[in-house]
Amino acid sequence: MIYDVVIIGGASAGLTSGIFAGRKKLNAVILSKEVGGQSLLTNTIENFPGFDSISGREIITKMRAQVEKFGVEIKEGVEVKSIEKSGDVFSVNVKNGDKVEAKSVILATGKNPRRLGIPGEKEFENKGVSFCSICDAPLYGGKVVAVVGSGNSGLESARDLVKYAEKIYVMEYGPEIKGDESTQEIKGGTLVEKIIYKDKKTGEAKELAVGGVFVNIGWIPATGFLKDFVKLNEWGEVVIDHNTTETSVEGVFAAGDLTDIKYKQCVTATGEGAKAALAAYDFIASKN
Amino acid sequence: MIYDVVIIGGASAGLTSGIFAGRKKLNAVILSKEVGGQSLLTNTIENFPGFDSISGREIITKMRAQVEKFGVEIKEGVEVKSIEKSGDVFSVNVKNGDKVEAKSVILATGKNPRRLGIPGEKEFENKGVSFCSICDAPLYGGKVVAVVGSGNSGLESARDLVKYAEKIYVMEYGPEIKGDESTQEIKGGTLVEKIIYKDKKTGEAKELAVGGVFVNIGWIPATGFLKDFVKLNEWGEVVIDHNTTETSVEGVFAAGDLTDIKYKQCVTATGEGAKAALAAYDFIASKN
Repeated sequence: MIYDVVIIGGASAGLTSGIFAGRKKLNAVILSKEVGGQSLLTNTIENFPGFDSISGREIITKMRAQVEKFGVEIKEGVEVKSIEKSGDVFSVNVKNGDKVEAKSVILATGKNPRRLGIPGEKEFENKGVSFCSICDAPLYGGKVVAVVGSGNSGLESARDLVKYAEKIYVMEYGPEIKGDESTQEIKGGTLVEKIIYKDKKTGEAKELAVGGVFVNIGWIPATGFLKDFVKLNEWGEVVIDHNTTETSVEGVFAAGDLTDIKYKQCVTATGEGAKAALAAYDFIASKN
Repeated sequence: MIYDVVIIGGASAGLTSGIFAGRKKLNAVILSKEVGGQSLLTNTIENFPGFDSISGREIITKMRAQVEKFGVEIKEGVEVKSIEKSGDVFSVNVKNGDKVEAKSVILATGKNPRRLGIPGEKEFENKGVSFCSICDAPLYGGKVVAVVGSGNSGLESARDLVKYAEKIYVMEYGPEIKGDESTQEIKGGTLVEKIIYKDKKTGEAKELAVGGVFVNIGWIPATGFLKDFVKLNEWGEVVIDHNTTETSVEGVFAAGDLTDIKYKQCVTATGEGAKAALAAYDFIASKN
């Protein structure tokens, strides 16, 4: 069986593509490692239009129900290995050896934050450890926070936080890099209470009392499986036409955080997901 | 007082710009003839991610509450006459003679459907008369419908409807144009029941029993006040950079249906509204 469209990725962009593909009565399937992905880790979304405040899990559950209502199949626990094209058909190769065939493809696998890899980072995620200042800055009103990473995204985080937080420490990320400090551990009770770092001049371990740690040492677009298939930019993001979301390969579209879109937000991802499904529909119609 | 950003238009794109501007603590104001605009006329939105089914009025009310929560002022009943730039400041001239000054501008005035201008069209709007097949086609399952207009958008409407409706009449729009029929009146009780048209060959008035009338004779972007200020395309749409929403004038951004974006949907408008606010924020930061 050859689907009209295979959507790879089941977070906000991919699910919105599913909603629009379903509304257009395309024969569509979503392949996803875990529906929701990163979004499940977001405690509180306050900037998604229509919701005063909603958790990532809750909004993903709602979107998933819409996708299913419109008859689009979701295959979960599926990791994609590679994509090939032969003739007019795309073959998506899945880790267990299966193959999914479709007339068009929507890429929506998102991105993952680079992690510090220190004790406490994972345990306190969303309990004081955040990877998104635009999302979470307003939750740190009056608190003392540490921003780890002083590159562009670290400084932007600080800029977002300066309007809310009482005090902000910007820490250079080390140890191999130029930084003066190397972060070593995040500690706390229910929530983050302090960050331990090593002063590289003195070699001394120090601690800072903070209510939040914003980790900003980069993102990794989830595009490893796409090498040599579509054009990626120097950061590994999929290069798209921002009006139609089409990639360098005709019939292949990409939406959301894995692309070279400048502003990566939940609501921009949904907008792009809708565009991608409508563009896939037009692409298929143009072939008939 | 000079605002950071003035947002012109208070429907889904403009309100989302307001949410993001507010979250970024920009000193922002929304000028709107009527908050919600066209969206208020949409009975049922089923393709906005997160909402199984919601009325236009309801979603606009929710977005408006978010805007206000983030401290962004909304001036309603305000019609914009023109915009000027002097130095680094934009002056927005309002119909009553007032002037609103800001460091950046977001244009989000949307578009309006071209209307047939026949009796019954207004009375039955959203009671069987629709201007949006992508939005409303699924509501006409098993019904007989008329699509008025056989240009591209009329044929696309028919394509959307063919999967739902029992029978579709596509009517050429006349009378001055090439059409064979001229629509004359839409009649019904609570809902649409029939459309009256004149067969131009015989001059005879005929009627078709239909449960829906989809009017597709074009859209008019609400950009009249922008002439000579930003670049418009041949259809009067604002030409934008689709990654950043920037127009031909630095510091002026545009989001939603008034732009040359290909897929004009509520969710794409919100995505674009978010981009515009974040781009305005970056623009202002770059000036400081």
